[in-house]
Amino acid sequence: MPYELHYWPTIQGRGEFVRLALEAAGVPYVDVARGDAKAMQHYLRDDAVQRPPFAPPFLVDGKRVIGQSAAILLYLGPRLGLVGKAEADQVWTHQIQLTLADLVTEVHDSHHPVASSLYYEGQKPEAKRRAQDLLKNRVPKFLAWFEAILQRNPRNAGRAVPHLVGGKLSYADLSLFQLVEGLRYAFPKAAARASKKAPLVLALHAGVQRNRRIAAYLASERRIPFNEQGIFRRYPELDG
Amino acid sequence: MPYELHYWPTIQGRGEFVRLALEAAGVPYVDVARGDAKAMQHYLRDDAVQRPPFAPPFLVDGKRVIGQSAAILLYLGPRLGLVGKAEADQVWTHQIQLTLADLVTEVHDSHHPVASSLYYEGQKPEAKRRAQDLLKNRVPKFLAWFEAILQRNPRNAGRAVPHLVGGKLSYADLSLFQLVEGLRYAFPKAAARASKKAPLVLALHAGVQRNRRIAAYLASERRIPFNEQGIFRRYPELDG
Repeated sequence: MPYELHYWPTIQGRGEFVRLALEAAGVPYVDVARGDAKAMQHYLRDDAVQRPPFAPPFLVDGKRVIGQSAAILLYLGPRLGLVGKAEADQVWTHQIQLTLADLVTEVHDSHHPVASSLYYEGQKPEAKRRAQDLLKNRVPKFLAWFEAILQRNPRNAGRAVPHLVGGKLSYADLSLFQLVEGLRYAFPKAAARASKKAPLVLALHAGVQRNRRIAAYLASERRIPFNEQGIFRRYPELDG
Repeated sequence: MPYELHYWPTIQGRGEFVRLALEAAGVPYVDVARGDAKAMQHYLRDDAVQRPPFAPPFLVDGKRVIGQSAAILLYLGPRLGLVGKAEADQVWTHQIQLTLADLVTEVHDSHHPVASSLYYEGQKPEAKRRAQDLLKNRVPKFLAWFEAILQRNPRNAGRAVPHLVGGKLSYADLSLFQLVEGLRYAFPKAAARASKKAPLVLALHAGVQRNRRIAAYLASERRIPFNEQGIFRRYPELDG
């Protein structure tokens, strides 16, 4: 049985971190909600599901149902060959993923600082203040950390394409690629400014983009374009 | 060598989820910053640390340095006997922990919806709007999910003290205890209202509170009292 990914069919959102891992591994999977929008509801609402996810994205692998994008990647990593075999590498890769997920939440909250249940238009002044702090303080701080761990990874010495953990592509690399993509889409000016101090992050991004399977995926219809319903939204008034 | 926990010495914060696990297991550990406030800085700032955490809390176990509270619990869980042995149980426990951590972030942001770097006093109107949504929509939704998974855990049938996963105490149970403690401290009115629909969550909370080691910990000076520098803050104007 192929893996089933359940996620909103019209946005990249948090599902994209899982899609990129499945695509990079070249395994068969079904992006269920793009064919059948109701299937997701069974897992979210049906009392018969013993271990229901709190929210999409979630993965169905046979009888297993796994929610939380970082937990999905923790589960898939060894199965897809997208994480090292040593426990220390697995925990470190996961730690990086969780840190990256924290920034993703902060990016989301920059256009929804008051409530996810309200429209952006109902929280614009608050969004402006939050985005200012995000771009001035938070994004540079996170990028500096990613740059530092790329610098300190001894396996990156003398290599054109650096990796976050060891000498091989991991799901954390794919997620960092997606983060850079998203920041560039949402905040072109601020992202350009911030990336100047993160050359290794940019080199990693370029390396992932050239990966044969990822390049094919990005050029396909399976890649949903960025839009203003997702996490990374282009609202020029927020790009300080 | 005992485990070293590095976290801010004056608040419970995210470090508390780790403290509770160490305390429940009865293993020796050092809460480093309460004796030596500078030791933390080495791991955060020194270029010689190959895998630095982004922020506290972090655990030092010999040569390993592990950040992100959920990743620390993922690592400690099997070592402390606070998670099942089956992979499915370990991933499910972690998924619960990550979902709980999402709510913890939302609680934090209810008093800091604009920026962590600003004082609460500089974002009070925004905090009021966000807290309203948190207490009306988000806390009830999360508590309903915890209640549902407690109901659906077949091992809880006929037991006075339910568990989130299987029939044994896990680190997720300890974290849910702490979440209830925090909500009661920060929002006594809203927490009382919301708990009425979550009797199993309350029974779990009461069970953890009676755990011999946890009871001893809570009565000791090692338990830092809640205060208005932590995640759960009592600002009566936010308790709608």
